[in-house]
Amino acid sequence: MKNTKNMLWGGRFSQTPKANLLSYNSKENIVNDYRLIPYDIIGSIAHVKMLRHQNILTKKEAASIIKALEKLLKKYKKGQFSLNPSLEDVHMNIEVEVSKMTPHGKKMHTARSRNDQVILDMRLYMRDELISIALMILNLCTSLDLLKKINLPFISYTHTRVAQPITLAFWADSYKRAILRDLERIFNLHSRINQNPLGACAVAGTTWNINREYTAKLLGFQGVQDNAHDVSTNRGELESEFVYILSSIMIKLSRISEEFLFLSEKGIIEIPDAYCTGSSIMPQKKNADFLEIMRARASRTIGNLLSILTILKGLPSGFNSDTQEIKPLLFSSIDMTKESISLMSEVLPQIKINKEEVIYELEKGYACSTELADLLCKKGIPFREAHELTGKIVKECIQKEIYLSSLTSKELELKSGIKISDEELKIATNPDKSADARFDMAHIDLSAYKRAVFRLRKKSQLRI
Amino acid sequence: MKNTKNMLWGGRFSQTPKANLLSYNSKENIVNDYRLIPYDIIGSIAHVKMLRHQNILTKKEAASIIKALEKLLKKYKKGQFSLNPSLEDVHMNIEVEVSKMTPHGKKMHTARSRNDQVILDMRLYMRDELISIALMILNLCTSLDLLKKINLPFISYTHTRVAQPITLAFWADSYKRAILRDLERIFNLHSRINQNPLGACAVAGTTWNINREYTAKLLGFQGVQDNAHDVSTNRGELESEFVYILSSIMIKLSRISEEFLFLSEKGIIEIPDAYCTGSSIMPQKKNADFLEIMRARASRTIGNLLSILTILKGLPSGFNSDTQEIKPLLFSSIDMTKESISLMSEVLPQIKINKEEVIYELEKGYACSTELADLLCKKGIPFREAHELTGKIVKECIQKEIYLSSLTSKELELKSGIKISDEELKIATNPDKSADARFDMAHIDLSAYKRAVFRLRKKSQLRI
Amino acid sequence: MKNTKNMLWGGRFSQTPKANLLSYNSKENIVNDYRLIPYDIIGSIAHVKMLRHQNILTKKEAASIIKALEKLLKKYKKGQFSLNPSLEDVHMNIEVEVSKMTPHGKKMHTARSRNDQVILDMRLYMRDELISIALMILNLCTSLDLLKKINLPFISYTHTRVAQPITLAFWADSYKRAILRDLERIFNLHSRINQNPLGACAVAGTTWNINREYTAKLLGFQGVQDNAHDVSTNRGELESEFVYILSSIMIKLSRISEEFLFLSEKGIIEIPDAYCTGSSIMPQKKNADFLEIMRARASRTIGNLLSILTILKGLPSGFNSDTQEIKPLLFSSIDMTKESISLMSEVLPQIKINKEEVIYELEKGYACSTELADLLCKKGIPFREAHELTGKIVKECIQKEIYLSSLTSKELELKSGIKISDEELKIATNPDKSADARFDMAHIDLSAYKRAVFRLRKKSQLRI
Amino acid sequence: MKNTKNMLWGGRFSQTPKANLLSYNSKENIVNDYRLIPYDIIGSIAHVKMLRHQNILTKKEAASIIKALEKLLKKYKKGQFSLNPSLEDVHMNIEVEVSKMTPHGKKMHTARSRNDQVILDMRLYMRDELISIALMILNLCTSLDLLKKINLPFISYTHTRVAQPITLAFWADSYKRAILRDLERIFNLHSRINQNPLGACAVAGTTWNINREYTAKLLGFQGVQDNAHDVSTNRGELESEFVYILSSIMIKLSRISEEFLFLSEKGIIEIPDAYCTGSSIMPQKKNADFLEIMRARASRTIGNLLSILTILKGLPSGFNSDTQEIKPLLFSSIDMTKESISLMSEVLPQIKINKEEVIYELEKGYACSTELADLLCKKGIPFREAHELTGKIVKECIQKEIYLSSLTSKELELKSGIKISDEELKIATNPDKSADARFDMAHIDLSAYKRAVFRLRKKSQLRI
Repeated sequence: MKNTKNMLWGGRFSQTPKANLLSYNSKENIVNDYRLIPYDIIGSIAHVKMLRHQNILTKKEAASIIKALEKLLKKYKKGQFSLNPSLEDVHMNIEVEVSKMTPHGKKMHTARSRNDQVILDMRLYMRDELISIALMILNLCTSLDLLKKINLPFISYTHTRVAQPITLAFWADSYKRAILRDLERIFNLHSRINQNPLGACAVAGTTWNINREYTAKLLGFQGVQDNAHDVSTNRGELESEFVYILSSIMIKLSRISEEFLFLSEKGIIEIPDAYCTGSSIMPQKKNADFLEIMRARASRTIGNLLSILTILKGLPSGFNSDTQEIKPLLFSSIDMTKESISLMSEVLPQIKINKEEVIYELEKGYACSTELADLLCKKGIPFREAHELTGKIVKECIQKEIYLSSLTSKELELKSGIKISDEELKIATNPDKSADARFDMAHIDLSAYKRAVFRLRKKSQLRI
Repeated sequence: MKNTKNMLWGGRFSQTPKANLLSYNSKENIVNDYRLIPYDIIGSIAHVKMLRHQNILTKKEAASIIKALEKLLKKYKKGQFSLNPSLEDVHMNIEVEVSKMTPHGKKMHTARSRNDQVILDMRLYMRDELISIALMILNLCTSLDLLKKINLPFISYTHTRVAQPITLAFWADSYKRAILRDLERIFNLHSRINQNPLGACAVAGTTWNINREYTAKLLGFQGVQDNAHDVSTNRGELESEFVYILSSIMIKLSRISEEFLFLSEKGIIEIPDAYCTGSSIMPQKKNADFLEIMRARASRTIGNLLSILTILKGLPSGFNSDTQEIKPLLFSSIDMTKESISLMSEVLPQIKINKEEVIYELEKGYACSTELADLLCKKGIPFREAHELTGKIVKECIQKEIYLSSLTSKELELKSGIKISDEELKIATNPDKSADARFDMAHIDLSAYKRAVFRLRKKSQLRI
Repeated sequence: MKNTKNMLWGGRFSQTPKANLLSYNSKENIVNDYRLIPYDIIGSIAHVKMLRHQNILTKKEAASIIKALEKLLKKYKKGQFSLNPSLEDVHMNIEVEVSKMTPHGKKMHTARSRNDQVILDMRLYMRDELISIALMILNLCTSLDLLKKINLPFISYTHTRVAQPITLAFWADSYKRAILRDLERIFNLHSRINQNPLGACAVAGTTWNINREYTAKLLGFQGVQDNAHDVSTNRGELESEFVYILSSIMIKLSRISEEFLFLSEKGIIEIPDAYCTGSSIMPQKKNADFLEIMRARASRTIGNLLSILTILKGLPSGFNSDTQEIKPLLFSSIDMTKESISLMSEVLPQIKINKEEVIYELEKGYACSTELADLLCKKGIPFREAHELTGKIVKECIQKEIYLSSLTSKELELKSGIKISDEELKIATNPDKSADARFDMAHIDLSAYKRAVFRLRKKSQLRI
Repeated sequence: MKNTKNMLWGGRFSQTPKANLLSYNSKENIVNDYRLIPYDIIGSIAHVKMLRHQNILTKKEAASIIKALEKLLKKYKKGQFSLNPSLEDVHMNIEVEVSKMTPHGKKMHTARSRNDQVILDMRLYMRDELISIALMILNLCTSLDLLKKINLPFISYTHTRVAQPITLAFWADSYKRAILRDLERIFNLHSRINQNPLGACAVAGTTWNINREYTAKLLGFQGVQDNAHDVSTNRGELESEFVYILSSIMIKLSRISEEFLFLSEKGIIEIPDAYCTGSSIMPQKKNADFLEIMRARASRTIGNLLSILTILKGLPSGFNSDTQEIKPLLFSSIDMTKESISLMSEVLPQIKINKEEVIYELEKGYACSTELADLLCKKGIPFREAHELTGKIVKECIQKEIYLSSLTSKELELKSGIKISDEELKIATNPDKSADARFDMAHIDLSAYKRAVFRLRKKSQLRI
């Protein structure tokens, strides 16, 4: 069994930790820590440079530590650096590796704690992922823009019933605007994440003459998170906001998924075979499983958010190991969301819309009733009465099994006492035409958003 | 039983809705709708003014409707307007009331739907509540600032164990900064909420020549939410963000509560009798129930968030009645959060800190160990070795049942081989002094935040 | 302002609780407590009878208290007993009322605490509600049995795509069996709930010579929950199990709702007008809002469960006021579930199934493909090859726009090299016939379940 | 890229699924499926035996398939069988492997679907895990029984404040009884899980003359789950109940964790060094991280439950791929819970209780006040007055800084006008003695539970 001599904190202890205790604490964590390696190394380089800059380390000491760290980074990039679970976490693994290469390694932890270190790593990681997801959202918008170029009528539903004719462009635009709100949330969160936590040490800062602005500059942070107790206590808050935003994104994807399952079942849209799978027993089946899985992954992301919030609730102040368990929840949420956005962006422009079925659905759903009521209203009947009258007309049509588009202006005059031209009636009751009249949307140009993402990247640039 | 004649949509129906159906749909909803009454009236006034401005209503028609609406608003303010549950919701109640006062009431619903109406009401309501909560957060910060003025040592914990000496000011500052991040989230959300949804109608806009910029101006919105399908489909998204922010606030309050329960049990702080209650059986008890209830209300807020997200997940596009059920979840979260902030703001400055117990806790917890290790390190021992050495010293002290502050410089020299002056040692190991050395925090002035909240209010001003 | 003289615990205090503190703690709670009044009174009667039986109270004392309690119960039943919020809760309200009627009221709290009292009230309440929900589940099953008597083909879906023909009876039976599992869960929970907590006092029992078996017998409990610390600490555990079961029920109802929204939109089933509502703008609309609301209420129930579990997580042992907040979560979950079961039971037998559309959906969905593959397989082709071959046949049919039922035995022989009679082929590919061959289900008789519920009631009978 | 020829369902498709689609659907799932391998093989053996028994397969066919399956099982046990992600799942992997060994492999899927197959695998897996957790709970109870043998006073808290003196045995017994309720829940769930789903096929059963009782017997099921549509539709329901029970267990462990963190910080109990870790910066630290991590894992388990319920809510009937995503949620919950029970069972008997500190805490907390009030009450003062009087006495003691145990009978007489003997007073106010008087608990013998678990195992025995 390993003993606390390997540990960085053995002095006060008379027993070494038991293997199964370490396994309980760290077995899963060390796997999760793998993706933090580069951030931990970069953070350590910045820390050591600052210690040198402040004359806490000598030139020679700093140089040898940084050299060792850079070597380790290369090893990691080649896939040759694996973490030893008996050393608890990524931080101790790196310090021990560095100390093997240089005796000065023992000085690299001066004026910091694993507490501010892991918070730093997570900030750098989240910052990268925020930008990566921002770029993916732009991609998704580009896919939606491709749909917007297709000139086709489409169906709006309310209460899972046909509502009114819309256009495919209108539908696509609505999801674009919705997802752009999540992009704005990402911008908001970025400004909170991009603050330097390093130097908070355990929970209470340090009497060493450190320079937090200096590490902030090296690491591309916009500012310093001043209060150490705040840094430590609120580990997990930004992660929770991140997963909230991911939930918001996944909910939207789950809704497109639901709608596509529904519309493809009806033959209104078609998902390409390349994105479907079959049944092992029913030969006719062409299932779009990925839409169901995406829907379920929205649920998993929500569950992850919930776990994080439940972890944080009622914790006493200061650093608590409970927050370690937030890592896998964030990581899996990020992975699921990125894969979902990416797949949806790829599939969206390949969806086929069956125009004939769209029109049939609109006719069958009496989608132009509101247009008809509005037409009567414009001719002078109060809206509430026009609504009542049109309701009765629809009821009759259903009984006679005819569509609104077969109504003649004479019949309408008979029922309403109002003179309406054939032309007017046709525009109102023809699903293909009715939509056009309604839309004169402002187009949202993506380029402003692209520039904003670009600025985000620039703001977050390492200067190491 | 009521019949669909009272309803605004009876034309197409051959049966009237059953009483228990209406009760299932509306019984709870109509109670929730009560707080939307003023917003529904104001939104209706703006809508009618716009219809007039666009010549859709005559001057006379508009005037008579607005007069009726204003009358209703007065009635509501006097507590004389109650909602009739058989009329489904606040919108129909108001339209029916107006129609009793003027025959033109039947025209007020022209070019809108209950769908965009309820979304409008909720936006106006949320906007008000955002500002009200923003003001309460400023209050809470002011309470924390009062604590900051008290010059007392305090305890930081990590892992529910004494970590290092801090000051009460440092502790209070950490919560102030944390809660100000939530205030920033409120600012972020306000910009998303303060967009005009009116004119989206059911889900697909309208062919009426409406003017959405005009109603936006009247209602104090910063812009128009362009896409009607987006407006309708994403009802509930902003509510979810709101409750996320409330959860974030409540989690912080739950953590202060947990800490206060813990510290007051130990006699380190004291909650005034006026905020405690007793036990019906145990005569010695003085319980701070409110802290437990606040902790539980954090859980309820989180559960409400979860309910909202679960409601939204997997819904098809367009308007769905599921979102009606978001109302009570938002309302109860807002109520619980406001009451909690308010009570905490009141209690905070009345908390008594027992300095003697603070010092005792710090001594007993060997809180100055890090200072001691840092001192040794500054004298030339690599941090890792200084840490190990200090660990051993602490172990010995525990065995001998003495505190770090009783260590003499001679003993230390014996153990470490390092010469340290009595003065230096005293500063490092005296809990009352050690904290001072570490803090030189920037003070956050609240006035910038106050101005920002003021601007928010100005931005949201009604121009009716 | 009220003062602690009214309180039952003022001795140790030097300040009276502030009004807003009491409001924070009790304002909502006292409203929730209303439904506990009868249980609190009955529990108190049993407690006083036991105190008398053990000679702790004199005959006269006991009689006068019981008389007062019975008077109060009558008052409550007439709707004349309202709770005074300044007295914190139902328990203090009742004790104070009794003490107004008899000076011996001050003795009724001997050997109990509000802690075991509220747990007792909740047990009695939950026991009643469990039985009430059990009866409603039987009702729902009876409704499903009505559907089972209708001889109609129906559609099974997998992945929201037509799978195979089934019968309506088969569909109904599947939900009946599913909901009966929840009934079994209710039986399981009943045995855990029906244990006497009274006598646990605050958390640690009492030295009074009480008789817990005696109160258990009076109150219809099957046994005594022995350990007082367990009673107090685990308040909320049974509530969480209750809401878990309610979630399980609501999830099933939400799934029927989803399916009905989907099937009614397609015209396969029809929801009677009496259970639908219209749109204020779109005259053709007939929305089954209640199905959407039921779906959302499943989400709310799940959120309530989550709140409860989050409240309980990480609480220290003993009684904590956090658990007070579980009440509204349980109450609203029970109310929503009961109303949902009741409405669904009423609507289910009134659903109309459009046989023509069912057959059309099955044909269009090539629902008999599995039957065809099985037929080929029975003639000697390995299943995997029969599946492949049938898949190709379906693909051809789709391209030719014909249904499986139009296939001739000759064409099939040509493709498969297998001789199949016209009769066999017809049975396999005719959706109306194919289902019949597959089902020979055991019928579940409800009478055993009815007897079980009856036994439950008997077990829980008061003997006061 | 792989093509659908490898798939078991390619016939109907004109495009092969894209690599990233398969990756999205299956990459994580195939990893999760690894633990299902043995169950899938055993289930397949039973299925093939039944097909033989019913004369659907020849003796030779069945024998060759079974031989191949047994070979595969051996390979798996040696760790030599890995799953190919391009074959979607464990079921296809096994069928393809078998088919490589024998051409009859193509017949093994006759009369079943992957839908009933995965449900079967999960049932067999859950059945094993239920028993394994049941055994662990017995272990935990044995650990608690060890504590029960230690004759020591202990502290009960309410509202995180000292309540009354108890004994360590009483505390341990309370957790034993609580966890045994979860064991009963496991028994309840076992009866629902131990029903044969095989033969449900996709969702609608089969016309093959299968024998579900036969496979039930082979696989050790107590019965057959009759309705195929129920089997398929309600996949995930039993998993949700499983994770509910795990949440209930984890909540209890999280509460012990919270209490231990709190008590060890106060020095009342001590966690052995072997279960603690240190700080990288603060040399004095001895953190019981595992307690914090356990608390957090309770949150994660709750989040997993929530994800499952959210996945199921609102799904249409039949089989949906959403339920695939339940696997990792169940698996991680089972793993976390088993590891937590196991570690807690190990640590519990090693906890050291510091009797001196226990007594100090009880004295300081005036824990005997209720005893004192009861004593006065037994002498004839109504409880409410005795309570008031004792409250005042406590207040005085606090002001004078003395404990209740220093009260003399004279002083008491002076205050209460009641004559009490020194002996009586001593018993009432001495924390070490007061507890003993109160407890006369029935001891729960574990052997009945052990026999029940044994019966469970017997009931579930494979007969293959």
